[in-house]
Amino acid sequence: MSRVISNAVIRRMPRYYRYLGELLDRGIERISSNELSHLMNVTASQIRQDLNNFGGFGQQGYGYNVQYLYEEIGKILGLDVTHNIVILGAGNLGQALAGYVQFEKKGFKIIGLFDVNKDIVGMSVRGTKVRSIDELHDFVKENHVDIAAFTMPKDKAEAMAKTIVNLGIKAIWNFANMELSLPEDIIVENVHLSDSLMQLSYNIAKYNREQK
Amino acid sequence: MSRVISNAVIRRMPRYYRYLGELLDRGIERISSNELSHLMNVTASQIRQDLNNFGGFGQQGYGYNVQYLYEEIGKILGLDVTHNIVILGAGNLGQALAGYVQFEKKGFKIIGLFDVNKDIVGMSVRGTKVRSIDELHDFVKENHVDIAAFTMPKDKAEAMAKTIVNLGIKAIWNFANMELSLPEDIIVENVHLSDSLMQLSYNIAKYNREQK
Repeated sequence: MSRVISNAVIRRMPRYYRYLGELLDRGIERISSNELSHLMNVTASQIRQDLNNFGGFGQQGYGYNVQYLYEEIGKILGLDVTHNIVILGAGNLGQALAGYVQFEKKGFKIIGLFDVNKDIVGMSVRGTKVRSIDELHDFVKENHVDIAAFTMPKDKAEAMAKTIVNLGIKAIWNFANMELSLPEDIIVENVHLSDSLMQLSYNIAKYNREQK
Repeated sequence: MSRVISNAVIRRMPRYYRYLGELLDRGIERISSNELSHLMNVTASQIRQDLNNFGGFGQQGYGYNVQYLYEEIGKILGLDVTHNIVILGAGNLGQALAGYVQFEKKGFKIIGLFDVNKDIVGMSVRGTKVRSIDELHDFVKENHVDIAAFTMPKDKAEAMAKTIVNLGIKAIWNFANMELSLPEDIIVENVHLSDSLMQLSYNIAKYNREQK
Protein backbone atom coordinates (compact mmCIF):
# COMPACT_ATOMS: atom_id res chain seq x y z
CA MET A 1 0.00 0.00 0.00
CA SER A 2 1.92 3.03 -1.20
CA ARG A 3 -0.59 5.86 -1.22
CA VAL A 4 -0.71 8.20 1.71
CA ILE A 5 -3.86 7.88 3.80
CA SER A 6 -4.78 10.79 6.02
CA ASN A 7 -4.69 10.41 9.78
CA ALA A 8 -8.35 11.42 9.93
CA VAL A 9 -9.31 8.41 7.81
CA ILE A 10 -7.15 6.08 9.89
CA ARG A 11 -8.66 7.43 13.10
CA ARG A 12 -12.09 6.41 11.82
CA MET A 13 -11.12 2.83 10.95
CA PRO A 14 -11.38 1.35 14.48
CA ARG A 15 -14.94 2.65 14.62
CA TYR A 16 -15.83 0.90 11.37
CA TYR A 17 -14.23 -2.23 12.73
CA ARG A 18 -16.24 -2.00 15.93
CA TYR A 19 -19.56 -1.54 14.11
CA LEU A 20 -18.84 -4.31 11.62
CA GLY A 21 -17.97 -6.62 14.50
CA GLU A 22 -21.34 -5.89 16.07
CA LEU A 23 -23.11 -6.59 12.76
CA LEU A 24 -21.29 -9.91 12.52
CA ASP A 25 -22.33 -10.77 16.08
CA ARG A 26 -25.90 -10.14 15.01
CA GLY A 27 -25.49 -12.45 12.01
CA ILE A 28 -25.74 -9.72 9.37
CA GLU A 29 -23.91 -10.74 6.19
CA ARG A 30 -24.18 -7.68 4.00
CA ILE A 31 -24.96 -4.01 4.37
CA SER A 32 -25.38 -1.08 2.01
CA SER A 33 -23.40 2.09 2.54
CA ASN A 34 -26.73 3.82 3.25
CA GLU A 35 -27.60 1.41 6.05
CA LEU A 36 -24.09 1.60 7.46
CA SER A 37 -24.31 5.38 7.22
CA HIS A 38 -27.55 5.43 9.20
CA LEU A 39 -26.14 3.09 11.84
CA MET A 40 -22.86 4.95 12.29
CA ASN A 41 -24.30 8.41 11.90
CA VAL A 42 -21.91 9.50 9.14
CA THR A 43 -22.81 10.24 5.51
CA ALA A 44 -22.86 7.40 2.98
CA SER A 45 -20.53 9.45 0.83
CA GLN A 46 -18.04 9.67 3.69
CA ILE A 47 -18.15 5.90 4.10
CA ARG A 48 -17.56 5.32 0.39
CA GLN A 49 -14.70 7.80 0.37
CA ASP A 50 -13.10 6.32 3.47
CA LEU A 51 -13.26 2.77 2.21
CA ASN A 52 -12.09 3.77 -1.27
CA ASN A 53 -8.78 4.68 0.34
CA PHE A 54 -8.23 0.99 0.82
CA GLY A 55 -9.51 -0.19 -2.54
CA GLY A 56 -13.25 0.03 -1.96
CA PHE A 57 -14.60 -3.41 -0.94
CA GLY A 58 -18.12 -2.46 -2.05
CA GLN A 59 -20.09 -3.76 -5.00
CA GLN A 60 -22.71 -1.66 -6.78
CA GLY A 61 -26.18 -2.97 -5.94
CA TYR A 62 -24.93 -5.46 -3.40
CA GLY A 63 -23.38 -3.32 -0.73
CA TYR A 64 -20.60 -4.50 1.53
CA ASN A 65 -19.91 -8.06 2.55
CA VAL A 66 -19.67 -7.59 6.33
CA GLN A 67 -17.30 -10.47 7.06
CA TYR A 68 -14.97 -9.53 4.22
CA LEU A 69 -14.94 -5.85 5.10
CA TYR A 70 -14.38 -6.67 8.77
CA GLU A 71 -11.40 -8.84 7.94
CA GLU A 72 -9.91 -6.39 5.47
CA ILE A 73 -10.16 -3.48 7.89
CA GLY A 74 -8.71 -5.79 10.54
CA LYS A 75 -5.69 -6.38 8.29
CA ILE A 76 -5.31 -2.64 7.67
CA LEU A 77 -5.34 -2.11 11.43
CA GLY A 78 -2.73 -4.82 11.91
CA LEU A 79 -5.15 -7.07 13.79
CA ASP A 80 -4.23 -10.13 11.74
CA VAL A 81 -1.17 -10.60 13.94
CA THR A 82 -0.96 -11.07 17.70
CA HIS A 83 0.50 -8.26 19.81
CA ASN A 84 2.10 -9.07 23.13
CA ILE A 85 1.67 -6.41 25.77
CA VAL A 86 3.34 -5.79 29.10
CA ILE A 87 1.58 -3.48 31.53
CA LEU A 88 3.94 -1.35 33.57
CA GLY A 89 2.12 -0.25 36.69
CA ALA A 90 -0.34 -2.72 38.21
CA GLY A 91 -2.48 -0.24 40.11
CA ASN A 92 -6.18 0.18 39.39
CA LEU A 93 -5.69 1.33 35.81
CA GLY A 94 -3.17 -1.40 34.98
CA GLN A 95 -5.49 -4.00 36.50
CA ALA A 96 -8.43 -2.58 34.56
CA LEU A 97 -6.53 -2.93 31.28
CA ALA A 98 -5.43 -6.45 32.19
CA GLY A 99 -9.06 -7.34 32.76
CA TYR A 100 -10.46 -6.40 29.36
CA VAL A 101 -11.25 -9.67 27.62
CA GLN A 102 -12.15 -7.79 24.45
CA PHE A 103 -8.49 -6.83 23.89
CA GLU A 104 -7.51 -10.47 23.72
CA LYS A 105 -10.25 -11.13 21.16
CA LYS A 106 -8.54 -8.61 18.88
CA GLY A 107 -5.19 -10.31 19.30
CA PHE A 108 -3.79 -8.11 22.07
CA LYS A 109 -2.36 -10.46 24.66
CA ILE A 110 -1.38 -9.20 28.09
CA ILE A 111 1.65 -11.35 28.80
CA GLY A 112 3.07 -9.51 31.79
CA LEU A 113 2.10 -7.11 34.53
CA PHE A 114 4.80 -5.30 36.50
CA ASP A 115 4.96 -3.03 39.51
CA VAL A 116 7.41 -1.60 42.04
CA ASN A 117 5.03 -1.98 44.95
CA LYS A 118 5.90 -5.08 46.96
CA ASP A 119 2.38 -5.27 48.35
CA ILE A 120 0.93 -6.13 44.95
CA VAL A 121 3.86 -8.07 43.44
CA GLY A 122 2.84 -11.73 43.46
CA MET A 123 -0.86 -10.91 43.22
CA SER A 124 -2.77 -12.48 40.33
CA VAL A 125 -4.95 -10.41 37.97
CA ARG A 126 -7.17 -12.55 35.74
CA GLY A 127 -4.55 -15.26 35.72
CA THR A 128 -1.56 -12.99 35.16
CA LYS A 129 0.88 -12.71 38.05
CA VAL A 130 2.11 -9.24 39.00
CA ARG A 131 5.91 -9.32 38.72
CA SER A 132 8.48 -7.01 40.25
CA ILE A 133 9.73 -4.37 37.84
CA ASP A 134 13.23 -5.75 38.56
CA GLU A 135 12.27 -8.81 36.51
CA LEU A 136 11.33 -6.76 33.43
CA HIS A 137 14.74 -6.97 31.76
CA ASP A 138 14.90 -10.77 31.86
CA PHE A 139 11.24 -11.09 30.95
CA VAL A 140 11.66 -9.01 27.79
CA LYS A 141 14.73 -11.01 26.79
CA GLU A 142 12.80 -14.27 27.15
CA ASN A 143 9.46 -13.13 25.68
CA HIS A 144 8.64 -11.18 22.57
CA VAL A 145 7.03 -7.92 23.65
CA ASP A 146 5.37 -5.64 21.09
CA ILE A 147 3.78 -3.00 23.29
CA ALA A 148 4.45 -1.54 26.74
CA ALA A 149 1.41 0.02 28.43
CA PHE A 150 2.45 2.91 30.70
CA THR A 151 0.11 2.93 33.68
CA MET A 152 2.67 3.94 36.31
CA PRO A 153 2.60 7.36 38.02
CA LYS A 154 3.65 10.28 35.82
CA ASP A 155 6.92 10.90 37.65
CA LYS A 156 8.17 7.41 36.81
CA ALA A 157 7.23 7.54 33.12
CA GLU A 158 10.22 9.33 31.62
CA ALA A 159 12.75 6.97 33.22
CA MET A 160 10.67 3.96 32.24
CA ALA A 161 10.54 5.19 28.65
CA LYS A 162 14.36 5.07 28.53
CA THR A 163 14.34 1.53 29.92
CA ILE A 164 11.79 0.40 27.35
CA VAL A 165 13.79 1.86 24.48
CA ASN A 166 16.96 0.15 25.71
CA LEU A 167 15.11 -3.15 25.92
CA GLY A 168 14.12 -2.82 22.26
CA ILE A 169 10.35 -2.47 22.74
CA LYS A 170 9.04 -0.45 19.82
CA ALA A 171 5.61 0.74 20.89
CA ILE A 172 4.16 2.47 23.96
CA TRP A 173 0.51 2.82 24.97
CA ASN A 174 0.88 5.83 27.20
CA PHE A 175 -1.58 6.67 30.00
CA ALA A 176 0.93 8.72 31.99
CA ASN A 177 -0.70 12.08 31.16
CA MET A 178 2.47 13.56 29.73
CA GLU A 179 4.23 13.41 26.43
CA LEU A 180 7.34 11.26 26.52
CA SER A 181 10.67 12.22 24.94
CA LEU A 182 11.42 9.30 22.67
CA PRO A 183 13.50 8.40 19.61
CA GLU A 184 11.61 8.91 16.37
CA ASP A 185 11.22 5.22 15.59
CA ILE A 186 9.26 4.50 18.78
CA ILE A 187 5.52 4.39 18.17
CA VAL A 188 3.40 6.04 20.84
CA GLU A 189 -0.32 6.17 21.36
CA ASN A 190 -1.29 8.60 24.11
CA VAL A 191 -4.47 8.27 26.12
CA HIS A 192 -4.76 11.61 27.86
CA LEU A 193 -7.72 11.15 30.18
CA SER A 194 -7.56 14.68 31.49
CA ASP A 195 -7.61 16.07 27.92
CA SER A 196 -10.74 14.05 27.32
CA LEU A 197 -12.34 15.46 30.45
CA MET A 198 -11.44 19.01 29.34
CA GLN A 199 -13.01 18.34 25.95
CA LEU A 200 -16.16 17.34 27.80
CA SER A 201 -16.17 20.49 29.93
CA TYR A 202 -15.59 22.58 26.79
CA ASN A 203 -18.73 21.07 25.28
CA ILE A 204 -20.69 21.65 28.48
CA ALA A 205 -19.62 25.32 28.53
CA LYS A 206 -20.50 25.66 24.84
CA TYR A 207 -23.91 24.10 25.41
CA ASN A 208 -24.58 26.42 28.36
CA ARG A 209 -23.61 29.49 26.29
CA GLU A 210 -25.97 28.40 23.51
CA GLN A 211 -28.87 27.99 25.94
CA LYS A 212 -28.58 31.58 27.12
CA MET B 1 -18.08 34.04 21.26
CA SER B 2 -20.09 33.68 18.09
CA ARG B 3 -17.61 32.44 15.50
CA VAL B 4 -17.45 28.77 14.72
CA ILE B 5 -14.25 27.12 15.88
CA SER B 6 -13.30 23.84 14.25
CA ASN B 7 -13.26 20.66 16.29
CA ALA B 8 -9.63 20.13 15.37
CA VAL B 9 -8.69 23.41 17.08
CA ILE B 10 -10.75 22.56 20.15
CA ARG B 11 -9.15 19.12 20.35
CA ARG B 12 -5.74 20.80 20.58
CA MET B 13 -6.69 23.18 23.41
CA PRO B 14 -6.30 20.72 26.31
CA ARG B 15 -2.77 20.06 25.11
CA TYR B 16 -1.94 23.78 25.19
CA TYR B 17 -3.45 23.94 28.65
CA ARG B 18 -1.33 21.02 29.81
CA TYR B 19 1.90 22.50 28.49
CA LEU B 20 1.16 25.96 29.85
CA GLY B 21 0.41 24.44 33.26
CA GLU B 22 3.83 22.76 33.20
CA LEU B 23 5.50 26.07 32.28
CA LEU B 24 3.73 27.74 35.20
CA ASP B 25 4.88 24.98 37.54
CA ARG B 26 8.42 25.73 36.38
CA GLY B 27 7.93 29.43 37.10
CA ILE B 28 8.09 30.58 33.47
CA GLU B 29 6.18 33.84 32.99
CA ARG B 30 6.32 34.39 29.27
CA ILE B 31 7.07 32.41 26.15
CA SER B 32 7.34 33.19 22.45
CA SER B 33 5.33 31.24 19.92
CA ASN B 34 8.65 29.88 18.61
CA GLU B 35 9.64 28.52 22.01
CA LEU B 36 6.18 27.09 22.58
CA SER B 37 6.35 25.61 19.09
CA HIS B 38 9.64 23.88 19.85
CA LEU B 39 8.35 22.57 23.17
CA MET B 40 5.07 21.26 21.80
CA ASN B 41 6.43 20.06 18.49
CA VAL B 42 3.95 21.99 16.34
CA THR B 43 4.73 24.89 14.02
CA ALA B 44 4.74 28.45 15.41
CA SER B 45 2.32 29.40 12.66
CA GLN B 46 -0.09 26.68 13.83
CA ILE B 47 0.09 28.04 17.37
CA ARG B 48 -0.60 31.59 16.23
CA GLN B 49 -3.49 30.42 14.08
CA ASP B 50 -4.98 28.30 16.85
CA LEU B 51 -4.81 31.04 19.44
CA ASN B 52 -6.10 33.67 17.02
CA ASN B 53 -9.38 31.75 17.01
CA PHE B 54 -9.84 32.98 20.54
CA GLY B 55 -8.63 36.52 20.03
CA GLY B 56 -4.88 35.99 19.99
CA PHE B 57 -3.48 36.67 23.51
CA GLY B 58 0.00 37.30 22.08
CA GLN B 59 1.89 40.56 21.83
CA GLN B 60 4.41 41.23 19.07
CA GLY B 61 7.93 41.17 20.50
CA TYR B 62 6.79 40.01 23.93
CA GLY B 63 5.29 36.63 23.27
CA TYR B 64 2.61 35.09 25.42
CA ASN B 65 2.01 35.78 29.08
CA VAL B 66 1.89 32.20 30.36
CA GLN B 67 -0.41 32.81 33.33
CA TYR B 68 -2.85 34.87 31.28
CA LEU B 69 -2.90 32.42 28.40
CA TYR B 70 -3.35 29.50 30.81
CA GLU B 71 -6.31 31.16 32.46
CA GLU B 72 -7.92 32.23 29.20
CA ILE B 73 -7.64 28.75 27.69
CA GLY B 74 -8.96 27.41 30.99
CA LYS B 75 -12.05 29.61 30.57
CA ILE B 76 -12.51 28.47 26.98
CA LEU B 77 -12.38 24.89 28.20
CA GLY B 78 -14.93 25.63 30.92
CA LEU B 79 -12.41 25.01 33.69
CA ASP B 80 -13.34 28.21 35.52
CA VAL B 81 -16.33 26.40 37.02
CA THR B 82 -16.41 23.26 39.14
CA HIS B 83 -17.85 20.07 37.64
CA ASN B 84 -19.34 17.45 39.90
CA ILE B 85 -18.86 13.90 38.70
CA VAL B 86 -20.44 10.61 39.69
CA ILE B 87 -18.64 7.44 38.67
CA LEU B 88 -20.97 4.61 37.75
CA GLY B 89 -19.08 1.36 38.12
CA ALA B 90 -16.53 1.18 40.93
CA GLY B 91 -14.38 -1.62 39.51
CA ASN B 92 -10.72 -1.08 38.71
CA LEU B 93 -11.34 1.59 36.08
CA GLY B 94 -13.82 3.51 38.23
CA GLN B 95 -11.41 3.36 41.16
CA ALA B 96 -8.56 4.51 38.93
CA LEU B 97 -10.58 7.56 37.82
CA ALA B 98 -11.59 8.29 41.41
CA GLY B 99 -7.92 8.26 42.35
CA TYR B 100 -6.64 10.91 39.93
CA VAL B 101 -5.84 13.94 42.03
CA GLN B 102 -5.09 15.95 38.89
CA PHE B 103 -8.77 15.95 37.92
CA GLU B 104 -9.68 17.73 41.12
CA LYS B 105 -7.01 20.36 40.47
CA LYS B 106 -8.83 21.22 37.25
CA GLY B 107 -12.15 21.56 39.05
CA PHE B 108 -13.51 18.07 38.38
CA LYS B 109 -14.80 16.79 41.68
CA ILE B 110 -15.70 13.14 42.15
CA ILE B 111 -18.67 13.42 44.49
CA GLY B 112 -20.03 9.89 44.22
CA LEU B 113 -19.01 6.38 43.29
CA PHE B 114 -21.69 3.75 42.63
CA ASP B 115 -21.79 0.05 41.96
CA VAL B 116 -24.19 -2.90 41.89
CA ASN B 117 -21.70 -5.28 43.47
CA LYS B 118 -22.47 -5.71 47.16
CA ASP B 119 -18.89 -6.79 47.85
CA ILE B 120 -17.55 -3.34 47.04
CA VAL B 121 -20.48 -1.17 48.19
CA GLY B 122 -19.39 0.46 51.45
CA MET B 123 -15.71 0.39 50.49
CA SER B 124 -13.88 3.70 50.52
CA VAL B 125 -11.82 4.91 47.54
CA ARG B 126 -9.62 7.92 48.40
CA GLY B 127 -12.19 9.10 50.88
CA THR B 128 -15.23 8.54 48.70
CA LYS B 129 -17.58 5.79 49.82
CA VAL B 130 -18.85 3.35 47.19
CA ARG B 131 -22.65 3.55 47.26
CA SER B 132 -25.22 1.10 45.96
CA ILE B 133 -26.59 2.05 42.56
CA ASP B 134 -30.04 1.96 44.20
CA GLU B 135 -29.10 5.18 45.98
CA LEU B 136 -28.29 7.02 42.74
CA HIS B 137 -31.73 8.55 42.27
CA ASP B 138 -31.83 10.16 45.72
CA PHE B 139 -28.19 11.20 45.49
CA VAL B 140 -28.75 13.07 42.23
CA LYS B 141 -31.81 14.79 43.66
CA GLU B 142 -29.79 15.98 46.66
CA ASN B 143 -26.54 16.85 44.89
CA HIS B 144 -25.86 18.77 41.72
CA VAL B 145 -24.26 16.35 39.25
CA ASP B 146 -22.72 17.65 36.01
CA ILE B 147 -21.11 14.52 34.59
CA ALA B 148 -21.70 10.78 34.87
CA ALA B 149 -18.64 8.62 34.15
CA PHE B 150 -19.65 5.28 32.62
CA THR B 151 -17.24 2.66 33.87
CA MET B 152 -19.72 -0.17 34.24
CA PRO B 153 -19.66 -3.25 31.94
CA LYS B 154 -20.82 -2.63 28.37
CA ASP B 155 -24.06 -4.62 28.72
CA LYS B 156 -25.26 -2.30 31.50
CA ALA B 157 -24.44 0.95 29.69
CA GLU B 158 -27.51 1.41 27.52
CA ALA B 159 -29.96 1.00 30.42
CA MET B 160 -27.85 3.28 32.60
CA ALA B 161 -27.86 5.93 29.87
CA LYS B 162 -31.67 6.01 30.06
CA THR B 163 -31.54 6.37 33.84
CA ILE B 164 -29.05 9.23 33.61
CA VAL B 165 -31.16 11.09 31.08
CA ASN B 166 -34.26 10.69 33.25
CA LEU B 167 -32.34 12.02 36.23
CA GLY B 168 -31.48 15.16 34.27
CA ILE B 169 -27.70 14.66 34.06
CA LYS B 170 -26.52 16.38 30.90
CA ALA B 171 -23.07 14.95 30.23
CA ILE B 172 -21.56 11.47 30.03
CA TRP B 173 -17.90 10.48 30.06
CA ASN B 174 -18.25 7.12 28.39
CA PHE B 175 -15.73 4.29 28.83
CA ALA B 176 -18.20 1.53 27.98
CA ASN B 177 -16.66 0.81 24.56
CA MET B 178 -19.90 1.33 22.68
CA GLU B 179 -21.75 4.32 21.37
CA LEU B 180 -24.83 5.15 23.41
CA SER B 181 -28.21 6.06 21.95
CA LEU B 182 -29.00 9.39 23.55
CA PRO B 183 -31.14 12.49 23.05
CA GLU B 184 -29.33 15.19 21.07
CA ASP B 185 -28.91 17.54 24.02
CA ILE B 186 -26.85 15.06 26.04
CA ILE B 187 -23.13 15.74 25.75
CA VAL B 188 -20.97 12.64 25.41
CA GLU B 189 -17.23 12.19 25.41
CA ASN B 190 -16.23 8.67 24.45
CA VAL B 191 -12.98 7.08 25.57
CA HIS B 192 -12.70 4.03 23.36
CA LEU B 193 -9.67 2.22 24.71
CA SER B 194 -9.86 -0.54 22.15
CA ASP B 195 -9.93 2.03 19.31
CA SER B 196 -6.78 3.53 20.75
CA LEU B 197 -5.13 0.11 20.86
CA MET B 198 -6.13 -0.49 17.22
CA GLN B 199 -4.64 2.85 16.25
CA LEU B 200 -1.42 1.69 17.87
CA SER B 201 -1.42 -1.62 16.03
CA TYR B 202 -2.12 0.23 12.76
CA ASN B 203 1.00 2.32 13.33
CA ILE B 204 3.04 -0.78 14.20
CA ALA B 205 1.89 -2.48 10.98
CA LYS B 206 2.67 0.67 8.98
CA TYR B 207 6.12 0.91 10.53
CA ASN B 208 6.84 -2.74 9.77
CA ARG B 209 5.76 -2.30 6.14
CA GLU B 210 8.04 0.69 5.77
CA GLN B 211 11.03 -1.24 7.14
CA LYS B 212 10.71 -3.93 4.49
